[in-house]
This record gives sequence, structure tokens and C-alpha cells, in this order.
Amino acid sequence: MQISPLLESLVEALRCLPGVGPKSAQRMAYHLLQRDRHGGIKLAQILHDAMVNIGHCQDCRTFTEQEQCRICGNIKRQQSGQLCVVETPSDILAIEQTGQYSGRYFVLLGHLSPLDGIGPNEIGLDILKQRLANESIKEVILATNPTIEGDATANFIAQMCDQFNIVATRIAHGVPVGGDLETVDGTTLSHSFLGRQKIDLS
Amino acid sequence: MQISPLLESLVEALRCLPGVGPKSAQRMAYHLLQRDRHGGIKLAQILHDAMVNIGHCQDCRTFTEQEQCRICGNIKRQQSGQLCVVETPSDILAIEQTGQYSGRYFVLLGHLSPLDGIGPNEIGLDILKQRLANESIKEVILATNPTIEGDATANFIAQMCDQFNIVATRIAHGVPVGGDLETVDGTTLSHSFLGRQKIDLS
Ligand SMILES: [Zn+2]
Ligand SMILES: [Zn+2]
Repeated sequence: MQISPLLESLVEALRCLPGVGPKSAQRMAYHLLQRDRHGGIKLAQILHDAMVNIGHCQDCRTFTEQEQCRICGNIKRQQSGQLCVVETPSDILAIEQTGQYSGRYFVLLGHLSPLDGIGPNEIGLDILKQRLANESIKEVILATNPTIEGDATANFIAQMCDQFNIVATRIAHGVPVGGDLETVDGTTLSHSFLGRQKIDLS
Repeated sequence: MQISPLLESLVEALRCLPGVGPKSAQRMAYHLLQRDRHGGIKLAQILHDAMVNIGHCQDCRTFTEQEQCRICGNIKRQQSGQLCVVETPSDILAIEQTGQYSGRYFVLLGHLSPLDGIGPNEIGLDILKQRLANESIKEVILATNPTIEGDATANFIAQMCDQFNIVATRIAHGVPVGGDLETVDGTTLSHSFLGRQKIDLS
């Protein structure tokens, strides 16, 4: 029973949002119509604006509506000589929130996957190579995901870095801090064994 | 650290949706940018269209982009002689899903709440009164929420019906007392329809 075709379309369209099923889409549509039309109109405008105008930073490939993102444009970060390679733009947010890193980034927007036709150029490694050649980068930190593909991608980039005599490091993978050893999956536990370090008693 | 002001605005704007906190808003924004820009643009257009063009049915006050909603315009439903009074447009959806009812509706868009300045005219009872006077309505089914305010509103409307010698019934208390009509399962709602009783004004 379609009471309002436009309302039905809205419920359907809201389901493009991740984690939104038919019930929550319905609740969202009725909530906006009943209590927050102003917020709904504003969301529509910003959403359209973002989808059309947000592209990729020419240097690091993260999302930005400008040619260069604010991190790449930051002189202090340029002077750090560090470049952190991640798979997705949201990985940058996660790393920024740690407050541990103050260099720049490079976003692959994926990982190497030859069987799916995703080679070095598909993940921007041609752009990365040029940066390694032209900028004064001292260390490339490989923060791709600890999966088979992420590891393979990290290794591939490490070899590229070697050609330019640039140090490549891989972030440590292991038992999460505060985590419980017996609840950690086997792969993670293997990583944490392989990545063990000598305890410095000095 | 604002990497992209427009992306930050989008995350903020998405929070007008019920049940969407900072983390899910962020996940939604990145998901659309990375995997479904087409869906995002379509959502923006439909959302704007809906917020601007969806008004209220002149007869029953539910949401519709036309003057009269499809239920009110349905001749079979007009001939049923039944009118079901609910508090919100989404209550109609819940009742329609039971398949137990084939009459028309009247949406109060609230309930009587004198302390908040919500009197009969604020919940459309002037319009309802005209309908009771002019249409051939045999029964008014009061399906307001089983709360103190919902009960008071039902009683008020029952007295109005009495002036026009129209039978007023209240849906049965299969609906949990203090509960919210739209969250009740279909079976319970069906039972409460079948068990409706005439309101005794004595
Ligand atoms: Zn950048
Ligand atoms: Zn209507």
C-alpha cells in the first residue's frame, strides 16, 4: 500500500546508507518529515555538494574538495620526511586520532589484487614513485591492513622504496593493548610472536 | 584536524538522522564517497524533494505530496464507513501491515496536552468534527497510544462522536500499556483491532 510514492522513494533511497535496513530507513524518513525538515533540507544540500565536489588530493589521494588536502599543504608535516601509506581515507582518521604521527600520508584506495585486475597503477603507485623520486622522504611507514593482500602490497612498496634508498617500515601487528590473550585470533597472535622485540632493561 | 571542511560538514549533517552518532555518520560519509556517489546524489535529490513537497492530506492529515492521500482517495475505503484515529503517520503503516483494517484514517499529529498548549484545534479536531458532520461515518476507531494522554484524547473524541450519534470504539488493550503503537508486533495489533470495544460514556 503506497500512501505517498515520494515518501516510499525516500525510504528506499535512505537504504544506500550502510547499516540502514527497511525499518530504520522508515523511521528516519518519518522523523525528518515530522520533526526536522530544516535538518533534512540542509543534509540534502551538503550531501549533493559533497558527492559532486569532493575529489582526491593530488598528492596523497585522500578525499578533499581542494587540489591539495590540508595535511599535504601543512609545511611542518612536509618537513617531517615521513610518509605513511594506508589503504583508505578513513585509515587516516584513525591514525590522526592516536596523535602519534605528524608526517604525511599516501592513500592507495585499495590494495594490489592481480586477479581482480588491480595492479600498481590502479592503486596510484605511479604517483607514489614520482613522490619518492622528487621529494626528500626519509621513511615510508606501511600501514596497509594485516591481510594477505595488505602484506603483499606493503612488500611491493618496500621494494620500490629500496630503489630510492628510502627506509620502509611496517606498523607492528599484535595483541591489542588492554586485550586478552585468549580472545585474540590465531593470525594476530602469530604476528605478535613474529614481531616480538627484546626487552630493554637499561 | 580538518582534512576536508566539506567532508566534516557532511558527517555533521548526517547526524540529523535518528540513531546516527559521530562514528556511524563518519562511516556513512566515507562509504558514499568511496563506493556509492550515485546513490548519494540520488538520496540528496529525493530528500530535498520530499522535505519541500510532502505536506499533509487535506482529509486525514497523513504525509502526502498530493492534496489527498491514496487511502482517502480510495472509493472502497470511503464506503467502509470506518474512520481510524491515530497519533502519527507511521501508526498508519503499522496498522496497514496487519491487513485487518480497510477503512480510512485520521492523523492527530500528536495528542491533547493542555499543559503544553496542545488543545483540540492543534491536533486537527476542528477538521475531524467537520468530517463527522458531513460524511457518512458509522464508526470511529480510536487507536491513539495506550498512554494517559492517548486515553484522554480518545475519550475527548468519543464525546465528539456522541454528539453526532456515531459509535466510537477503542482498540483493545493487547497493546502493552505505556507502549508505543508503532513498535508493537503485527499479531498483537491485529488482536487489539478485533477486540475493540464501544466506549462507555456513562
Ligand atoms: Zn593530501
Ligand atoms: Zn488522507
